[in-house]
Amino acid sequence: MDGQKNQQKNSMHVMSGIHSTHDGMGQATRKQFRKSQKNEISVDDFSREIRQGSRLHLAKAITLLESTVSADKRAGQRLLQELLPHTGNSIRIGITGVPGAGKSTFIEAFGKFLCDEGFKVAVLAIDPSSTISGGSILGDKTRMEELVRHENAFIRPSPTAGTLGGVHKKSRETMLLCEAAGYDVILIETVGVGQSETIVRGMVDFFLLLVLTGAGDELQGMKKGIMELADLIIVHKADGDNAKMAKKTVAEYQQILHFLQPASPGWTTKAIPASSKDYVGIEETWQIICSFKDTLMKSGFFIERRQSQTKDWFHTMIVDRLMDQFYEQPHTKTTVKSLEAEILKGNKTVSQAIEQLFLDNKS
Amino acid sequence: MDGQKNQQKNSMHVMSGIHSTHDGMGQATRKQFRKSQKNEISVDDFSREIRQGSRLHLAKAITLLESTVSADKRAGQRLLQELLPHTGNSIRIGITGVPGAGKSTFIEAFGKFLCDEGFKVAVLAIDPSSTISGGSILGDKTRMEELVRHENAFIRPSPTAGTLGGVHKKSRETMLLCEAAGYDVILIETVGVGQSETIVRGMVDFFLLLVLTGAGDELQGMKKGIMELADLIIVHKADGDNAKMAKKTVAEYQQILHFLQPASPGWTTKAIPASSKDYVGIEETWQIICSFKDTLMKSGFFIERRQSQTKDWFHTMIVDRLMDQFYEQPHTKTTVKSLEAEILKGNKTVSQAIEQLFLDNKS
Repeated sequence: MDGQKNQQKNSMHVMSGIHSTHDGMGQATRKQFRKSQKNEISVDDFSREIRQGSRLHLAKAITLLESTVSADKRAGQRLLQELLPHTGNSIRIGITGVPGAGKSTFIEAFGKFLCDEGFKVAVLAIDPSSTISGGSILGDKTRMEELVRHENAFIRPSPTAGTLGGVHKKSRETMLLCEAAGYDVILIETVGVGQSETIVRGMVDFFLLLVLTGAGDELQGMKKGIMELADLIIVHKADGDNAKMAKKTVAEYQQILHFLQPASPGWTTKAIPASSKDYVGIEETWQIICSFKDTLMKSGFFIERRQSQTKDWFHTMIVDRLMDQFYEQPHTKTTVKSLEAEILKGNKTVSQAIEQLFLDNKS
Repeated sequence: MDGQKNQQKNSMHVMSGIHSTHDGMGQATRKQFRKSQKNEISVDDFSREIRQGSRLHLAKAITLLESTVSADKRAGQRLLQELLPHTGNSIRIGITGVPGAGKSTFIEAFGKFLCDEGFKVAVLAIDPSSTISGGSILGDKTRMEELVRHENAFIRPSPTAGTLGGVHKKSRETMLLCEAAGYDVILIETVGVGQSETIVRGMVDFFLLLVLTGAGDELQGMKKGIMELADLIIVHKADGDNAKMAKKTVAEYQQILHFLQPASPGWTTKAIPASSKDYVGIEETWQIICSFKDTLMKSGFFIERRQSQTKDWFHTMIVDRLMDQFYEQPHTKTTVKSLEAEILKGNKTVSQAIEQLFLDNKS
């Protein structure tokens, strides 16, 4: 936890809640939401603490939302509902890049610059791969060492258990909580695995792609269409002997970008060199983001995109829920598997398999 | 209908079926599937006619599959089931391009070349836009004038009514019927609207993108990521004054392709100039496709892709069906609409809206 210094009154038993369970609030903390008992804080109090900048309460609230315990989740939702009018005031920035592109050193440098400028910065991470590796993207304590200690920063790794859809949902709501807590800039970091970039693109205003010199070579390892998601391409590690090569790479990317569709209508995706080590391109990145927001606010697309992102999210959740309900039914999974095998053997048409599947599920 | 010359015995009342209704077989034809009545052909007979090359029966069978009448659809499915062991032996080629890129003149030239070589060629079209415009992509009788008359060719416009998902399903099954009828090459034409290219990419082996000279300018009008779907980019109308410019455009595309992920693992997407007028690049296109098939058969990806396409189709159909069932319930559409409005106003979190929606639907 990075919010220790902000300990406030009433937070002691919240603390105990944190320590008692990791994936849930625990009964003791949950009870705090019942106004009947004294010395326990209500949703109102909790939400006020968050709005007043208690990182401890913010962390706690995120844990509630992420919990697999129904009562915790409900408490988290009530809290979010309460805070909803105070959300939406940040700029939401997605950051992706190939492994080794230096995402965390960039976030450290960029985040520190913003914090020093007086902005409150929240860093969230979406890492679908760590479900497999078992490690968390931000678990490495040496990452973002200085940013972690900055009083204006809040760093939160996403829980990696569960489906990507789940991460999706929780990260969005975490983002909203951070906004209610007064964070001006939300940085959402993701690695190029599965659908994570598309999901992150679907919840941010601005999308930033970090690459290395020698365009093309390392893009081979990236997902298709990644460049067309980006509002800015940063050729990172443009320092020392690499600086000249970075310039050339920037020119190459600019040329490619000319042929691609821009990620945001009315905005020309840019490519710039940057070095977190030599502090090159850090302030420029922020200027570009500000000019982006300006341009898209004027055209109306900024608001339009946010609204359509929210709508898409709702409709994705409907599909997710329908799929969950469907596969929760007894035997559905095995029936689907065996029908799939029949189809692949050429024994059944897909249409027939569908008819059989939905007939079986009715009876 | 282009299959008149192949009239066979027993086809007379099939003909009357064609004329009686457009979106269904009509009661008379449907009865042919009941073996009890004499002078009527059974599924067995019907499937034999198709396999023997009757374009009339093929056209009729497609109409059955496309029908909105349940009995017709069932008959079509029984027929497809019967024919399933005879499918899969064609090369499936998707063709897309910006409006004005000359898709139909290219298909005419390419299709005629293939027919003259002795291949049987089926041309299907997917045009989601014509639902709005009301016109069919192949409705214009002047298109593919010569190919239409070739004895080795079968041209079938897709029905454009209904959802793209529906077109998707029908086009796949139409493709299978054409394969059972002995067509060696299936050309699936689509226009760059909505999800149609992605859907077509999901059902073909090879995907061909037609562009014009001056790369970049006309790509602005195309969907994002379209180049990363293509196994071959043809710079079309490379004739007369345009020939030199086409060469330059080819070089530009080759350069961009170097930075993009190839559509098919183990295959380097190529760019070539072509002219349907001057018969340039037509045979080369076929050579490239043959070399593509060779390469991917050796690596195993050819079969692997087909199997994963079939699996994806099955799973897409499950989602489609679940969505249909969900929205068929009374009030669902209006509830979703009003919840969406609540969310956008900031009165509800998405999670709360989901809970309410699925609670309402249960009760």
